[in-house]
Amino acid sequence: MNERSDTIVFVLYPGLTVLDLIGPLEVFSSAMQYLEKPFRIAVAGETLDAVATDTPAKLTPDVTLADARRPFGVIVPGGGRPMMAAMGNRVLTEYLSEAAEGAAFVGSVCTGSLILGAAGLLDGRRATTHWAYAALLEKLGATYVRERWVEDGKFITAAGVSAGIDMALHLLARLAGDEAARRTQIDIEYDPQPPHGRLDWSLVDPEEAGEIRLARAREVLAGDAELLRRLA
Amino acid sequence: MNERSDTIVFVLYPGLTVLDLIGPLEVFSSAMQYLEKPFRIAVAGETLDAVATDTPAKLTPDVTLADARRPFGVIVPGGGRPMMAAMGNRVLTEYLSEAAEGAAFVGSVCTGSLILGAAGLLDGRRATTHWAYAALLEKLGATYVRERWVEDGKFITAAGVSAGIDMALHLLARLAGDEAARRTQIDIEYDPQPPHGRLDWSLVDPEEAGEIRLARAREVLAGDAELLRRLA
Repeated sequence: MNERSDTIVFVLYPGLTVLDLIGPLEVFSSAMQYLEKPFRIAVAGETLDAVATDTPAKLTPDVTLADARRPFGVIVPGGGRPMMAAMGNRVLTEYLSEAAEGAAFVGSVCTGSLILGAAGLLDGRRATTHWAYAALLEKLGATYVRERWVEDGKFITAAGVSAGIDMALHLLARLAGDEAARRTQIDIEYDPQPPHGRLDWSLVDPEEAGEIRLARAREVLAGDAELLRRLA
Repeated sequence: MNERSDTIVFVLYPGLTVLDLIGPLEVFSSAMQYLEKPFRIAVAGETLDAVATDTPAKLTPDVTLADARRPFGVIVPGGGRPMMAAMGNRVLTEYLSEAAEGAAFVGSVCTGSLILGAAGLLDGRRATTHWAYAALLEKLGATYVRERWVEDGKFITAAGVSAGIDMALHLLARLAGDEAARRTQIDIEYDPQPPHGRLDWSLVDPEEAGEIRLARAREVLAGDAELLRRLA
């Protein structure tokens, strides 16, 4: 009773950054053929309705959050302004808090870690997020670490957007072994060759960007006294 | 009259590999803020219904193929067995042939190039695809090149699944300049760190895999005399 299921749940909310979700979802969906005991993969929304993304494509979940309780693991994608609204969505944050109790892992991609933070799950933990959101993450009680992914206990958080692919392959290796991860990597032909090489940090000012995002979050969450206090 | 639009069309079909589509879609959607004259981005399906993917998530298009004619550019994702069915879908291949006439570019990710090939668009051209599908690509008249992406005239084809991200950043730089591409790269924090490093080719036999896929395509397309003759 109240045992956890064998399901890895990918959480949807309106306006999410779609690659945050699809990167790890593709990794795990492709990997299942290599596991002796496959997990079930579910994509869960508050309802079964199609959900808008940051692109013209909409995503439709296959279960509701209410039907995805006690997951084996859960992964939350990030977003821009819509993620800030999601931080204040108690259906979502309560689902995550409850899921986290029994789950083997709780993961996020990009600013998904801010939703985990809003749910009170990253207090005193090392975590990461999109480079422009470090200040917001720290306001929520976590210590920001600029790494591709960061593990602290059962929590695993990835950096911005595309980092979810790397995090998922790492997590897969942890759960199912290196060979399953290597085979999945070759199936999705993940041999990246960014045409402009490494990131050009001279193009951005992470500190300034962080202040802008923090101000914006205060604006989006103006009606949420509890969160607003934490972001003060 | 009959001028091309300013729309880049991402094509959906049932069972597509979702990361093939979402990688470039995220790159282009994120980039639009950096363009003086942004493109319109559209996700087009045969109908407006939600389309199944290779994961539990479904994708909903925002236009129909019929309403997405004369695109500026078009990108076709790949898939496994469902892609083979798509090769025989004349609504799709005729859309692509017609679109290709006026488009500035025609792109594919992974086995999406086989749909371009089935549409007769890669005859005598250099192209790439997922490593396991080289034999099938060559049957369709193209010369397979194992590169991350391959350009031949207006056609640009990417290798398996994740290669669409690299291809899209390259294409973006071509269309909108290096700075737009570099800024987009940092926005999606594309600084890949595959936890197991480069691909381990010792795990697979591309030639054997190619023969298996070719046999499977003949089976899926058994009712399609014209394609079957080309795959003989």
